[in-house]
Amino acid sequence: MNERISNEKLRGKIMTADEAAALIPNGAQIGFGGFTGSGYPKELPQALANRIKAAHERGEEFTVNAFTGASTAPELDGALAGVDGMHYRMPYQSDPTLRKKINDGTTLYTDIHLSHSAQLVAEGFMGKLDFAVVEAVRITEDGNIVPTSSVGNNKTYLDMAEKIIIEVNSWQSPDLEGMHDIWNGYLTPPNRPIIPINNVGDRIGDTFLTIDSDKVVAVIETTDRDRNSPFKPIDDDSRAIAGYLLDFYANEVKHGRLPKNLLPLQSGVGNIPNAVLDGLLHSDLENLTSYTEVIQDGMVDLIDAGKLAVASATAFSLSPDYAHNMNENAKNYRKSIVLRPQEISNHPEVIRRLGVLSCNGMIEADIYGNVNSTHVMGTRMMNGIGGSGDFTRNAYISAFVSPSTAKDGAISAIVPMVSHVDHTEHDVMVIITEQGIADLRGLAPRLRAQKIIDNCVHPDFRAQLQEYFDHSLVTSKAKHTPHDLRHSYDWHLNFIENGTMKLSHYR
Amino acid sequence: MNERISNEKLRGKIMTADEAAALIPNGAQIGFGGFTGSGYPKELPQALANRIKAAHERGEEFTVNAFTGASTAPELDGALAGVDGMHYRMPYQSDPTLRKKINDGTTLYTDIHLSHSAQLVAEGFMGKLDFAVVEAVRITEDGNIVPTSSVGNNKTYLDMAEKIIIEVNSWQSPDLEGMHDIWNGYLTPPNRPIIPINNVGDRIGDTFLTIDSDKVVAVIETTDRDRNSPFKPIDDDSRAIAGYLLDFYANEVKHGRLPKNLLPLQSGVGNIPNAVLDGLLHSDLENLTSYTEVIQDGMVDLIDAGKLAVASATAFSLSPDYAHNMNENAKNYRKSIVLRPQEISNHPEVIRRLGVLSCNGMIEADIYGNVNSTHVMGTRMMNGIGGSGDFTRNAYISAFVSPSTAKDGAISAIVPMVSHVDHTEHDVMVIITEQGIADLRGLAPRLRAQKIIDNCVHPDFRAQLQEYFDHSLVTSKAKHTPHDLRHSYDWHLNFIENGTMKLSHYR
Repeated sequence: MNERISNEKLRGKIMTADEAAALIPNGAQIGFGGFTGSGYPKELPQALANRIKAAHERGEEFTVNAFTGASTAPELDGALAGVDGMHYRMPYQSDPTLRKKINDGTTLYTDIHLSHSAQLVAEGFMGKLDFAVVEAVRITEDGNIVPTSSVGNNKTYLDMAEKIIIEVNSWQSPDLEGMHDIWNGYLTPPNRPIIPINNVGDRIGDTFLTIDSDKVVAVIETTDRDRNSPFKPIDDDSRAIAGYLLDFYANEVKHGRLPKNLLPLQSGVGNIPNAVLDGLLHSDLENLTSYTEVIQDGMVDLIDAGKLAVASATAFSLSPDYAHNMNENAKNYRKSIVLRPQEISNHPEVIRRLGVLSCNGMIEADIYGNVNSTHVMGTRMMNGIGGSGDFTRNAYISAFVSPSTAKDGAISAIVPMVSHVDHTEHDVMVIITEQGIADLRGLAPRLRAQKIIDNCVHPDFRAQLQEYFDHSLVTSKAKHTPHDLRHSYDWHLNFIENGTMKLSHYR
Repeated sequence: MNERISNEKLRGKIMTADEAAALIPNGAQIGFGGFTGSGYPKELPQALANRIKAAHERGEEFTVNAFTGASTAPELDGALAGVDGMHYRMPYQSDPTLRKKINDGTTLYTDIHLSHSAQLVAEGFMGKLDFAVVEAVRITEDGNIVPTSSVGNNKTYLDMAEKIIIEVNSWQSPDLEGMHDIWNGYLTPPNRPIIPINNVGDRIGDTFLTIDSDKVVAVIETTDRDRNSPFKPIDDDSRAIAGYLLDFYANEVKHGRLPKNLLPLQSGVGNIPNAVLDGLLHSDLENLTSYTEVIQDGMVDLIDAGKLAVASATAFSLSPDYAHNMNENAKNYRKSIVLRPQEISNHPEVIRRLGVLSCNGMIEADIYGNVNSTHVMGTRMMNGIGGSGDFTRNAYISAFVSPSTAKDGAISAIVPMVSHVDHTEHDVMVIITEQGIADLRGLAPRLRAQKIIDNCVHPDFRAQLQEYFDHSLVTSKAKHTPHDLRHSYDWHLNFIENGTMKLSHYR
């Protein structure tokens, strides 16, 4: 008997993943758990993929519409996309197989702010949700669910779905119980209340997800680990960028515009954010807090060092060693980590109230401070906007970071005009590359342009970017935001045609 | 003796506008009252313009940096811009003279979300504010100020400025007192509290602006009226657009996705919003509410008809007849109208909580649902983003409206790629022209494109827009958001060069 399934009725629903997958018909809309490679169901999606593959081999149509928290892993997105089984997908992804299917036109993908996705489903805009498929640490005596390494949209999907499938995963530590904060008070307008979070660590709800156990059609027992990748060692560019950001914060503190312990930090996932966290670890800063989307290795280090007092997020995104450590010692981290539904972890109300300092990666920025987070060369979807819009738009100070070049120097991250806009000139306050930092706050467009050219662009591209700006100043009839629309995308077109953004001659 | 100035000490500061203007030096940073042609100081700015003009004639440098609530009027923006007296301006404007100076490069203008502007000043990002110049209905016994027909950023400017100049305007009705709701509890992080507004009409503050009377250096007595323009009669296109929006809302109600009395309405200023309000007036809807930026004629009609229970805004934007009526009958409207600081009227926390239905005008939208609200042909600033971002980004349902063509049919409001992005594909839910409506919620990019082409574009441009989309589908290597960057701006370039977006041939 599995001691993690304490409810008698639900124990009666135990079956194999294949048996559970057989319950799901062609065309089903499914809300999956999972956020940044954590806490996603691991066996049902693969069994479903097998079922879809078999149906296709028989010449039958079979696809599903998949909603998640954010990115999942090869066992979910990869498996379903690999058999052409995903007709529709929202709100965020990062799996290579799925990305390919999105960009070849097979899978329809809607790239939605992570804080918006639950609301769209809750109010019925997206149609009926047939299934919710989530992972649990355990099923309680009352038939409720203790979540695992992510919360994501699980609450909304469980509330809205007609049927529920639960994967009880015994790899996930039972000591995670108590770390989650599930608020059942958040309703749709006109009944939406104040979110009573005044401090990063405030707990306002339950430690479990309340479900209608009559809706549960299957319980699957699993032992699979979250599929996370190790971080790369911090490189020089990342360290330089982190240095500029921390110096900038230090200067704000010096001028009395930020408190000594800063304000709650948000950071995207990746090498540069990791370098920022490492920089904080080796700084004099103390009593830091983080109101963010995911808990990364560097935050755990900061907690261990006594520098990060409390962190709020919706999921872990840990390397294998750190995930192992968290499973072993979750009990000790429960006082300093809160995992919330992504609607709350990314909520504009709380982000604006707390005055979050945001820092996110980007694909490219332009001379006026518009940022592209999603589309390579304007057309190819990378991952999605994720929570970068939720945090940037409401941050006290918003920053975007990137190495100044990519593809061995063939691509400049600073371009005349971004080929897709995810964050507008109105929202982007600070841009940083390994070349330097541009604080754009309060600046009119022409001053922003010169500052970005002077401080952020790689020397290989500086002259040609200055040339674009100077030329636009002359040819543009209106001088507020000078552009030459005939040449705005010359760099991108040159890369598409000749493999480099470096122009042999201008115009 | 002016009975509107009850404070003895401040009565001693009464002087002429010319005398007050003489106190302002070259280079001063001034926070002016004023929002959409309401409640702006009317005599000091003109006196200052005269002073600047005289200085320039003597060969002396003299400019000021001007911060406001939003747009003002010829007596402020027009006067100062007309003498080349405005070096810097934020966060919104709509005066023709100032617009010309911005676009010829004379005045540096920063186009900022209206909800962000106070915070930037409060935290010191914008440098020291030398003067606040605001209009008052009266000065109280305690030396505090009753605002007039707008609140805007007055609270923040009065708090932050070193010196204060007050225009006491006896044209403004004393009965406006009691309509304003000035909350002094809103602080900068880490001390920012919950905003305790749960319903549109909730009052959470004082009816007056508390000031440090020691900072007052001048009081000017004026009798000038707000300079508002009459609305044009509702045209067929506006009526058609309003019809589509109201039918859309009715359908949402029918499907149980909106309550019967809808949700709090926000609407931009202009002929289409006026047509929407007129449509509501002639509908069966009752017990409506509005959480918006400005109170327009149509809202007053709705209040008079008993259909609009309560409206919250930061300013009036009334035609002359309606402004006269408001001045006569302000006492009766106080129970149904609340005027708040723009930081609160436009606050994401409250907008998201109440579930506002937003509706704003636009310059152009593209096939993927990106919206340009500010730049004609990508370079020429019209007015600014205003509050459209504050509301759109946090609305329960966001809509953008425009006639499908401009300039006698030479310009299409629906284009292959917008020449400037103010609202991204992630934020724009509904697009409406007189041709029809496109509900984009939850749709992947390619489906959005076909819906917009089918429903919203003018027949004169439909074939050439379909051709761009079809061609991009073929030529674009990635099919998620197909574009042909070589031809994305052909329409704009053709307009710049040949005066029309109609292409004689494609490519």
